[in-house]
Formats: sequence, structure tokens, C-alpha cells
Amino acid sequence: MAGDPSDTPREAPSALLTDLYQLTMLQAYWREGMTEEAVFSLHFRELPPRRNYMLACGLSDALAFLEALRFRDEELRFLATLGLFRDDFLEWLGDFRFTGSVRALPEGTPVFPLEPILEVEGPLPEAQLAETVVMNQVHLQTVLASKAARVVAAARGRAVVDFGLRRMHGTDAGLKAARAFHVAGVAATSNVLAGRVYGVPVTGTMAHSYIQAHDDEMEAFRAFAALYPGTVLLVDTYDTLEGVRKVVRLARELGGDLRVRGVRLDSGDLAALAVETRRILDEAGLGEVQILASGGLDEDRVDRLLAAGAPLDGFGVGTSMGVSSDAPSLDIAYKLTAYAGAGRLKLSPGKELLPGRKQVFRVEEDGRAVRDVIGMAGEEAGGRPLLVSVMERGRRLDAAREPLADARERAREETLRLPERLRALDPADPPYPVEVSRALRRHQEDVRGRVTEGPGADRGPRPSGS
Amino acid sequence: MAGDPSDTPREAPSALLTDLYQLTMLQAYWREGMTEEAVFSLHFRELPPRRNYMLACGLSDALAFLEALRFRDEELRFLATLGLFRDDFLEWLGDFRFTGSVRALPEGTPVFPLEPILEVEGPLPEAQLAETVVMNQVHLQTVLASKAARVVAAARGRAVVDFGLRRMHGTDAGLKAARAFHVAGVAATSNVLAGRVYGVPVTGTMAHSYIQAHDDEMEAFRAFAALYPGTVLLVDTYDTLEGVRKVVRLARELGGDLRVRGVRLDSGDLAALAVETRRILDEAGLGEVQILASGGLDEDRVDRLLAAGAPLDGFGVGTSMGVSSDAPSLDIAYKLTAYAGAGRLKLSPGKELLPGRKQVFRVEEDGRAVRDVIGMAGEEAGGRPLLVSVMERGRRLDAAREPLADARERAREETLRLPERLRALDPADPPYPVEVSRALRRHQEDVRGRVTEGPGADRGPRPSGS
Repeated sequence: MAGDPSDTPREAPSALLTDLYQLTMLQAYWREGMTEEAVFSLHFRELPPRRNYMLACGLSDALAFLEALRFRDEELRFLATLGLFRDDFLEWLGDFRFTGSVRALPEGTPVFPLEPILEVEGPLPEAQLAETVVMNQVHLQTVLASKAARVVAAARGRAVVDFGLRRMHGTDAGLKAARAFHVAGVAATSNVLAGRVYGVPVTGTMAHSYIQAHDDEMEAFRAFAALYPGTVLLVDTYDTLEGVRKVVRLARELGGDLRVRGVRLDSGDLAALAVETRRILDEAGLGEVQILASGGLDEDRVDRLLAAGAPLDGFGVGTSMGVSSDAPSLDIAYKLTAYAGAGRLKLSPGKELLPGRKQVFRVEEDGRAVRDVIGMAGEEAGGRPLLVSVMERGRRLDAAREPLADARERAREETLRLPERLRALDPADPPYPVEVSRALRRHQEDVRGRVTEGPGADRGPRPSGS
Repeated sequence: MAGDPSDTPREAPSALLTDLYQLTMLQAYWREGMTEEAVFSLHFRELPPRRNYMLACGLSDALAFLEALRFRDEELRFLATLGLFRDDFLEWLGDFRFTGSVRALPEGTPVFPLEPILEVEGPLPEAQLAETVVMNQVHLQTVLASKAARVVAAARGRAVVDFGLRRMHGTDAGLKAARAFHVAGVAATSNVLAGRVYGVPVTGTMAHSYIQAHDDEMEAFRAFAALYPGTVLLVDTYDTLEGVRKVVRLARELGGDLRVRGVRLDSGDLAALAVETRRILDEAGLGEVQILASGGLDEDRVDRLLAAGAPLDGFGVGTSMGVSSDAPSLDIAYKLTAYAGAGRLKLSPGKELLPGRKQVFRVEEDGRAVRDVIGMAGEEAGGRPLLVSVMERGRRLDAAREPLADARERAREETLRLPERLRALDPADPPYPVEVSRALRRHQEDVRGRVTEGPGADRGPRPSGS
């Protein structure tokens, strides 16, 4: 619909959209000459309570931002006003480019705790500065895609449409959500810009205000249907079933010309109203007119409606999916795992870290995933390696420029390969097994031994295999 | 810090950042000649479970977007590809400007259910199109400011700093959150761009990665403190109390030159660690070095830490405040309340609507707010009227261009005027009373009578006082 959406320019945010400490650390690294190769891992530690897996998403936008990261003159001038930065550092910052490389899970891949969603490698200051914006983008789309996957599962093949823009968290979330939702199997969005930027199919019905502004509901239906023959009419402004009967009257008026696609129920007892609506439409010979539901829906309500046999053909889902209301965040972290050729750890309680460059292996039996193994990059831990190269020397590779449809198809296929209990809305028992390879455990112990050799140990790190 | 931040240009989002139905309704209104004056009200129906009030916020950005709303040629060309719009309509859209007026609660005003946060008046198509972006912006900042007000209350005068950018929902949320938080009393943000765009004070400490990248924690502290004498050192990378002892050693090294402002605890049992940290620092004569806490904090944890007597001087609060984790959305709605001089309603169950142009009156006794009354615009319902003119003929008035500090001061003062039970973290019992004036109730009954005169009532609305 939008030509080649992957090439539609998306303006990079200001380079100042970062945490101040990134810039103060950058100046320190620069002053201290600490510019050797670093590896950072983006991963989460725990699944939110009602998630059995997360869908990795947001990579493409994160990399586009990295590629375009520049400090403009007026931004440097602002930094100078903070009284923290030397002129020669700001000059260096003016030439800053991200020249590192990234290995990542392709978008739409189911991902589990401690598995790298991506690993950034590059000179320490560059890989450090990537943190804030990469986290912000991948967190957003991963959280939202994972919520949407649940709504899509609950809808059992019926279309789910994204109506959430108005109550999402700002303009960027509104745009990216539609993308993430589409990856997760949502059919279309109300967000016109997402159609233009990402090629997501756009759709819409009508608002209550359109009905209210007319002196008569019937008149409003008549005018809208004449202009948009394939439209969906909103019937609950005054009295839902009365609204449905008006659609029937409109059909009689128009004879064979009625091509209204459906009616939308937005309030009240949706299950009962859907049954009555279906009966009224069918008795009038309007069996092909669909019934769509909306109004405060989430995966549980969609599930209950269909379990109760409500004759619904599709769902408009807004706020709950739009903010991932039951789990609006993920404890995602971007952690240094190697510097200057040596694995790195932190030992803060409750925050396990796996050092070095890693790979995720998905072990399958009879086409069904049975467990993942997190290993060291380069080892053969068995199973299908999931992390692939997506950026080199600061430029996105083709793997990071795939059409959105490919990510969507991957999400569908890879989710179907998961054990069936993971696709349920309730917590999977047992959860999906994720193991750490023996080689990686040994490396972790080595690094732990080094950093705990005692206070004041000033000696350098031992070279390691990472 | 950023000159006059209110005049810093903020790029308006694409006019396509809207719901498709806004544009299809627009074309219908245009075709039907329905361009008379409409009134829309933005309000919410219920407070989230743990909120006793909401802080109105986001007006300034919403109005800036309305003022700048334009359809560019390439956007019109995209719309043409959808097969829904006639060329003459798209041409009209190319000349579209918002020329309406807005009355609103000044930012930082506590607001309650059914009270208009703002009312938009203008030709129906213009006031309709304002819906999506106005809701998106006011919802975001109102939700986040209201969450932050709770964290600030829990901190009992100690500084709260926003660390949330990395896990907020996208770039726009990250920027606007820092603004909304500052209005609600948050002292500073890590988000550098918010400093530049809105003049919010920016601050930061250091990340674990900085410590990890050095071969020795002590060396990292030494280098950072030399470069940033007033900094805060992060002490929990390997062993928190060992980290604190290194700060003491550094102080001995530097003698009177140590000007480290504080240490930050980011993991473990923060209450116990704070007590031990304070003891170690005090015994070393470092009574002026502050202790800041971070790591998964929200208002409840801050409250419990201080209730337990933890000697903490400030809090870095991230994700929970950044996504308003317990209430990430508000059931805010933008509803038509009058068209062509007549009040309008909808009767959808559970969704009460108050027709016409309205005013909110805050009734105070001895300087303390005791109840609000929602009345008709123009009536004298007693109390202080809260809605003021902020936009006329599509241009922002001075009231919509106030310095951020004014909104912050208003939030502080107006919150202090609320009954004390509303400022607690627990649900206020009883909740704050909001009444509807007798005149407005009568008007509501009149309008209800008109729209329920029976199916097929084709007669026009009666003129009304609204």
C-alpha cells in the first residue's frame, strides 16, 4: 500500500534523546582512552507473570536510529551549557558515528529469559551510547507484540484490528505499536501513518460523534453507507438492537445495493447483544453482514466471548493492547558482557549476567521446539542458532531490512513450533526450558573468579575465549 | 537552561497520525455540508483504582500540534492510494487548518471524573479531527504526571529523579514523560533532550558498565570523581558495602578534595544497606555524602523505605513511574456534546455524558477544596471556575504558553489545597465529591428526551442554551 515501506524515511530522534550518564561516561572513556572493543547484551531476566514467551520486535527501528545517530551543532551547543563537557570532547562528539556491529534475533522470534535479543559490539563509547535508544525501541515493540500475540491467539482466527492510538503513550508508541501488532498477527490498524510508514493495512468504521451530529441515526447510517459501501456501521449510540434494526431497514431501502460489511457493537453485554444482532440480521436475510465487537476488550474478554459462543466475526482492540495493560514493561537490560577481550560480569544480587559473546540454540524434535540452550558464540551447542548478523561497521545488512510481512510470517511459524501450552493465555506449566551450555557456565565461573579475587585486586583481566 | 524552552520548536507529528475514521467522517461531513459549530469534551469517566485525583497535563503540546496541523502533498498522495477519498476532498484537505477554540484546565490542575480537561469548539470537521492527537497527548502526560505525583508524595520532600527513558513507550513518551514528571514535582531527569526542549533539569550518575569496563572498581571511582567532582558513585556492582568502603578510601586519598555528592544503591535490601552505608560514611567523617536509591522503585517501595527509617536522601525512579505501571491508561474520551447549537448525548450503557459547553467550579472553604460542581458554561454555580480560554481561532493564547515552572507551581499549590486524604497513597474514603449543577442536569434531561423521542424521529434538534 505504501510502495516499499522499509525505505520510507523515518526521522531519527535527536541524539540528545539519551540518558545524561551515557554522555558523561563517554567523555570519561574518551579521556581515559578506553576505546577497545566492548560487547553489550540486551536481554530480560524474567517473563512478566502472564507471558509464556516474548516476541522479539523493534530491531529494524533501533538499527535505523543507530545508523543515523549524529550530534548536530545546536545539540552540542546545548551540551556546552551544562558545564560538564570540555570543548575538545564536544568537537569529538560532533564527529561521532556508530561503527559497530550487531547480532540479533530476527524480529518475530519467540524469546525467553536471559537470551540475548541482540548483542552490540564496537568501541566501548559507541556500544555504550547505543544503550538508551536501542532499549527504548526494542522494549516498546517487544512488549506490545507480545501482548498482541495473546489477543490474536484468543481471537481464534478472527480478525483483530488495532484501535489504540488515542490512548497509547505518545506519537512514537502509536506508530510503532501498529507495526509490532502486525508482526504479532493483528490484521490492520486505524493508524493512517502506520499505513504510510510501514505498509500496515489501515481500516476504520465510524465514531459515535458522527451519529450524534446527525439529527437521526438512520439518516447517519444512510449517508455513510452511500459514501462507503463496504463500511461497518456503529449501532450502539442510543439503543444497540434498535440500531441493528435500522441497518435492516436500510437494507430494505437499498435492495440489492446494500453492501455494508458489518455492524460494530461497542458497549453493553456484548455476548448477549451479538446473539440478538445475529438473529435480527439473519432473519432479514443479511447473513453476510458481519458483527464486530469493541469497547474495553483484551485477550481475556475476547476469549470469554468466543468461549460463550458469541457470534462475533472480528474485534477492535484498543487501550489494553495499546499499553499492554497487564504488563506495560519488561525488565529488559543492556549489560556489558566483554571488554578488551575479557568477559565481564556484575554480581548485584538477583541480576544474573552471562559473560561474553553468545548464541541462542533452539532445539527441536519432530518440528517442535523442546528447549533452548544459551551458549558461547562459536560453540556448537546443538539446535538451530538464532542470532544472526544484522549490522556491520554501522550499516544495516539485508537481514535488518526485510519486509514486515517476513517478520509477521516468522512470528506465525515460530510461535506454532512452540509447545502448545505456551500459546495458552494461562501460565505454562512447566515453563519453556532454557539451559546454559557447559562451556558458557565455565566461562561465567572464570569471570566471576576474576572479579571477586578480593578488594583492591588491581591486576588486569585474564584473556578469555569471549 | 535552554533559553526559553516554551519557544523551542517541537516538530508536529504527521497529520496522518490519526485514526482512519476521522478522515472518512471528515469527508462525509464535508460532502453533507455538516460544518456547523461543534463542541467536544475531553474527560474521563472513572479514576483508576489507586488514584484519588489526576493531574491535568499535556495541554501545551496538544495545542502546539493542533496549531501546526497540515496535510503535506506526499501525505495526500498516500491517502489517494487508499481508494476512499475523492480528489476534490483531498484538495480541500490540503488547505485544512484548525481554526477552532479551546477552553481547558491549566496544566497541573487536579481533575476528577466527568470534568472536562478541555473543550474544543469549532466547525465539526475540525473539532472532530482534533480528537486522536489531542487525546494521545493529554492522556500520556496526564497519566504520567498523576503517577509521578504519588512518587513525589511518598518521597516526603526528598528529591525524585526520572531514570525511565529506556523502558518508556517510545521516543515521544520518553520526552513528554520528563515534562509531565517535572510538573508533578519530580526534581530532574536523566533525559538530555527534555533539558533542551522543556528546560527540565538534567542529571545522572554512572552505569554498572563503567565500573565493569575498568579492571578495578576503585580505579573507576577515582577516574570518574576526578572528572566530575560533584558526582554520585554507583557502589553495588560487585559488593555494595565494599563499594562504599572504597568511596571512603578515595576520600582519604583526596583529603579535602573529595567532593563526591553521593553514592547510589541499585540492588539488594536497600533499607538495610542504606543504614550500613550511612554508618560507614558517618564513621569516616563523610556525613555530607548523600545516599541515593534506585532499582525497581515505585511509590510503595519509596514509602516503605522511608517508613522503615532508611537514611535515604533521594530516589532514582525508572520504569514503574515511566509507564505508570499500575495504571498505564485512563478511560479518557473525547465526546461530542453539542452541534449546531443543540446539546448532544449518547446513551451507551455505562458511559454517561454531560451535554453542551460546561464549566468546572471548585468550591473552597478556609482555603481547602471541599467539592467540585460541573455546571453549564456561563452559569454561576458557586466556587472558582477552572476552565480558561487557551486557544482562539486556531492560535494558542498566552495561557497555553506559560513557563513549565508555572504549571509545576500550580500542581504543588492546587494539590496542597485538596483534602489531605486525597494525597495519601491509599484510596480516599470518601472520594472527592463532584456534583452536577441543577441547570446542567436539566439540560441533560432535555437532550435525553429529544434523542429518545423514538425510532425514526426525523425532526431536528430543539435549540438549547448550550
